[in-house]
Amino acid sequence: MQGLMQHWPLLCSKVIDHAAHEYPLREVVSRSVEGPMHRTNYREVRERALKIAQLLEREGFGLGDRIATMAWNTWRHLECWYGITGIGAIYHTLNPRLFPEQIAWIMNDAEDKLLFVDLTFVPLVEALAPQIASLEKVIVLTDAAHMPETTLPNAVAYEEWLKGADGDFSWRVADENVAAGMCYTSGTTGHPKGVVYSHRSNVLHSMIAQAPDAMGLSSADRMLPIVPLFHANGWGIALTSPMSGAAMVMPGAKMDGASIYDILTTERVTLSAAVPTVWLMLLQHLETSGGELPDLKRVIIGGSACPRRVTEAFQNRYGVKVIHAWGMTEMSPLGTLCSIKPEYADLEGEALLALEEKQGFAPFGVEMKVTDDANVSLPRDGQSFGRLKVRGPAVAKAYYKNQGAEMFDDDGWFDTGDVAHIDPHGYMQITDRAKDVIKSGGEWISTIKIENLAVGHPGVAEAAVIGLRHPKWDERPLLVCVPKAGGSLTKDDLLGYLDGKIAKWWMPDDVVFVDEIPHTATGKIQKTALRKNFADYVLPTV
Amino acid sequence: MQGLMQHWPLLCSKVIDHAAHEYPLREVVSRSVEGPMHRTNYREVRERALKIAQLLEREGFGLGDRIATMAWNTWRHLECWYGITGIGAIYHTLNPRLFPEQIAWIMNDAEDKLLFVDLTFVPLVEALAPQIASLEKVIVLTDAAHMPETTLPNAVAYEEWLKGADGDFSWRVADENVAAGMCYTSGTTGHPKGVVYSHRSNVLHSMIAQAPDAMGLSSADRMLPIVPLFHANGWGIALTSPMSGAAMVMPGAKMDGASIYDILTTERVTLSAAVPTVWLMLLQHLETSGGELPDLKRVIIGGSACPRRVTEAFQNRYGVKVIHAWGMTEMSPLGTLCSIKPEYADLEGEALLALEEKQGFAPFGVEMKVTDDANVSLPRDGQSFGRLKVRGPAVAKAYYKNQGAEMFDDDGWFDTGDVAHIDPHGYMQITDRAKDVIKSGGEWISTIKIENLAVGHPGVAEAAVIGLRHPKWDERPLLVCVPKAGGSLTKDDLLGYLDGKIAKWWMPDDVVFVDEIPHTATGKIQKTALRKNFADYVLPTV
Ligand SMILES: Nc1ncnc2c1ncn2[C@@H]1O[C@H](COP(=O)(O)OP(=O)(O)OP(=O)(O)O)[C@@H](O)[C@H]1O
Ligand SMILES: Nc1ncnc2c1ncn2[C@@H]1O[C@H](COP(=O)(O)OP(=O)(O)OP(=O)(O)O)[C@@H](O)[C@H]1O
Ligand SMILES: [Mg+2]
Ligand SMILES: [Mg+2]
Repeated sequence: MQGLMQHWPLLCSKVIDHAAHEYPLREVVSRSVEGPMHRTNYREVRERALKIAQLLEREGFGLGDRIATMAWNTWRHLECWYGITGIGAIYHTLNPRLFPEQIAWIMNDAEDKLLFVDLTFVPLVEALAPQIASLEKVIVLTDAAHMPETTLPNAVAYEEWLKGADGDFSWRVADENVAAGMCYTSGTTGHPKGVVYSHRSNVLHSMIAQAPDAMGLSSADRMLPIVPLFHANGWGIALTSPMSGAAMVMPGAKMDGASIYDILTTERVTLSAAVPTVWLMLLQHLETSGGELPDLKRVIIGGSACPRRVTEAFQNRYGVKVIHAWGMTEMSPLGTLCSIKPEYADLEGEALLALEEKQGFAPFGVEMKVTDDANVSLPRDGQSFGRLKVRGPAVAKAYYKNQGAEMFDDDGWFDTGDVAHIDPHGYMQITDRAKDVIKSGGEWISTIKIENLAVGHPGVAEAAVIGLRHPKWDERPLLVCVPKAGGSLTKDDLLGYLDGKIAKWWMPDDVVFVDEIPHTATGKIQKTALRKNFADYVLPTV
Repeated sequence: MQGLMQHWPLLCSKVIDHAAHEYPLREVVSRSVEGPMHRTNYREVRERALKIAQLLEREGFGLGDRIATMAWNTWRHLECWYGITGIGAIYHTLNPRLFPEQIAWIMNDAEDKLLFVDLTFVPLVEALAPQIASLEKVIVLTDAAHMPETTLPNAVAYEEWLKGADGDFSWRVADENVAAGMCYTSGTTGHPKGVVYSHRSNVLHSMIAQAPDAMGLSSADRMLPIVPLFHANGWGIALTSPMSGAAMVMPGAKMDGASIYDILTTERVTLSAAVPTVWLMLLQHLETSGGELPDLKRVIIGGSACPRRVTEAFQNRYGVKVIHAWGMTEMSPLGTLCSIKPEYADLEGEALLALEEKQGFAPFGVEMKVTDDANVSLPRDGQSFGRLKVRGPAVAKAYYKNQGAEMFDDDGWFDTGDVAHIDPHGYMQITDRAKDVIKSGGEWISTIKIENLAVGHPGVAEAAVIGLRHPKWDERPLLVCVPKAGGSLTKDDLLGYLDGKIAKWWMPDDVVFVDEIPHTATGKIQKTALRKNFADYVLPTV
């Protein structure tokens, strides 16, 4: 017997319809790429999204077409998402920080037909366009006054283009399983892989994210998504904010410490989300400029492990609650968040900071387990680490064009490629990526743990640990370290600092000081490149 | 093109699996029907639900079977919901406060095969059982020691029955659209009508309820659902609490002011939900006994309009935030909640209380509009009132056996039978039920508005307004009033009190004092009965 409840498909259009109807005047404020601040609201975003949808359909785009965006976080990028999904086409966010060859490869893999591009990236895209056979047209996200001369195919200024529509249109999608969005992984461990979100997964992901122990967005919030819409589905914020009626404050192209501080305070942001490197820049700016953060209540930090000193500075110095989060492009992307359960409500000081180094627990809609190599679940004892596997309505079941099929188990679990342990209260901690793990004498050493400790030393700006071949132990750790400018850090200082904080056999066999550590396009440490750099390095213990 | 995301159906079993896995030791505390307090947790609730499912299947019950419960809110009732839905059977909650004939009619309509019943109701059910041809077996929710002698068919004590299972079982439902639960409406306006929830609607409803601007349940909460599981799907709390990891505190059979105060304070409840009459009893108890509510942070009040003096007492006297809510059995049941949007964040004192007389705004997942009789949408101006219509994934599309088909529009909107207006910020206020509206000289008078004002008079315990036939105006209002004990309230006092607070032509033509106003089984004023009582009453203005 079936239930007798309404058929109400979970569609992206329902989200912007809801926002426009229940929070019509809620602000969407952006630092425009042209310069000045721009103010609009959900009612207008929806109206303009309807125009986009109308124009796209008129120009022959439709169900399943991949439509790329290469753009900063602004109201225009937001409008594009809803316009594109409104006709059943697929927003495909491109990361402009990738190497041009990677971008071209990805666009060809996706067969993007149309591209919405910010002024910033016009030169980049002009160089790429001839290599993308599928690309029919480029819409530059600006007005006539700012439209550059360009060689781009069928180029038109967005605001001019929009004038061709009256917005008298209705959304076209009825099936919640239709594809809505596409995003390639960051390419930290190899080639980026395409993930294809559905309307259903996007909507459910945002309902999951809304919960108080997850992002906890409410209509009282003013949300600053610093994480770009092109990084891991923009952490879902382009859907979660309108769903919950939170105002959106968009940083545009400027994500340096001073600009972020400026927009945080001028726009009275209550909640923000970004990777650790962005927060490090802000904190450094605050240290030198002496500002305060009176409106900001919470920051969500993920994408890579949040160093303890970031959490400490936010909470103890600025009174801002840190929510450490873990996720993946393949998970839409939220996996776990480190809210405080009542079991840990009494923690203070160092004990609280230690808890918050963990990536947190799974909200309803995310299932997770840690298994050994034989796929046997390990106990939730906070010690036993192994492969982290997940399941849920917003988790990928395959990559686009069936790449990397080996990550998808027959039993429906997705192997994250991360190594982790889970404690008795469900708090998960990533100890490594499986590909970065160091195996010394048959036992695993957590590189993330050592790195987190090392960056706790006041003289260290950044640290990375990699494994080097060793005749006796198979692999031994090398600590690669960027010292803070003007310091006089030595190898012995650093090893002395680590001594007693980790097991003796985890101690790096050597420390190397460098000016720079290689990063990926999303600011993560690129250990593949680092290992290549040190391929011929000989450890003193060899 | 379809998305490439996992198939992860929205099932009730996912909720209890999540709770047992992520919050295994979170408490479920109940005042048992036998007397003593009982403590268990989500892990054990799930284990015992698996046993129930295993036994039900073994005894031949399965997909689509209606299995009734007539029980207070305790851990056992909760286990039954998950056990029953776990094999694709349907929990059918019976309201023991209905007239026995009504209960028999409902059980026959539903064709219940099995009944789980609390000790309290054994005599009632013994009298009913012979009339229910479909009823094969009755399980009494107690242990062997408390099992009474009974004539009930195949009666067995729950705890004895459970001993027959080892719980080595897996949930049986794969399709999220399968029916999960069944609840009849309260019967305020006529015969109760059957609503059939699906797994999908139940899960989505709880995800909607979790949002910060809705119930905002988190793992830090200790939730006391005073509203019975048999009233309007128990307001979804049996699912929302485990979903969010909140502890559950269950009042069992005792809902008087002293018992509620006792459990609130002893169990350090942070959040509770009940109809206004329950809260009136608690407030009266506090007034005479002088207690405080230090742990309680929020109360959700709905089912009928929350009188201003209840909100005032909670917020101004006890520091407890009131969330006025409106819902219906047909909506699973949440419709709107009166959280405070930033537009109203500066309201204080009387202005805030006036806002909180409204039933609030729609969260994502609830669509609403107010239309005139020609189904044309009325403006959201806070004035224009008309029929309130709703849509959403947790809204009924039909009643069981196709009763009341006229409530379901062809365009997919459900006519709530309520009359309301909506203000520019989306705050809806119920002015009446369509069937209770008074039409005087072609214009509508809101009975709820007058009643709310009347109960604001310190001498009034309860008030109801009904329309009586009038030769000139068609209908004119009569105010029926229960005075507070020991007072000396007069008609002129009351009319003088109303004077200036409502339009002249809204003033009741007469006031009648009575000892009691008739109520429905869920404590609502039964205007059908009241109108019958006053059918022959002659207004002085006639
Ligand atoms: N809070 C965190 N702490 C530690 N690691 C994190 C955290 N959040 C995310 N990560 C890492 O980021 C990964 C997800 O990142 P993303 O989807 O952007 O691509 P990537 O894994 O970096 O790239 P690729 O999969 O192409 O190699 C996770 O699998 C995890 O390794
Ligand atoms: N906060 C509230 N203020 C005013 N009325 C409310 C409120 N909450 C619920 N109601 C009323 O209760 C109704 C829903 O109640 P329920 O589903 O329990 O059955 P009922 O409508 O009383 O009975 P029946 O439909 O059988 O006549 C709503 O339609 C509305 O009239
Ligand atoms: Mg990855
Ligand atoms: Mg009703």
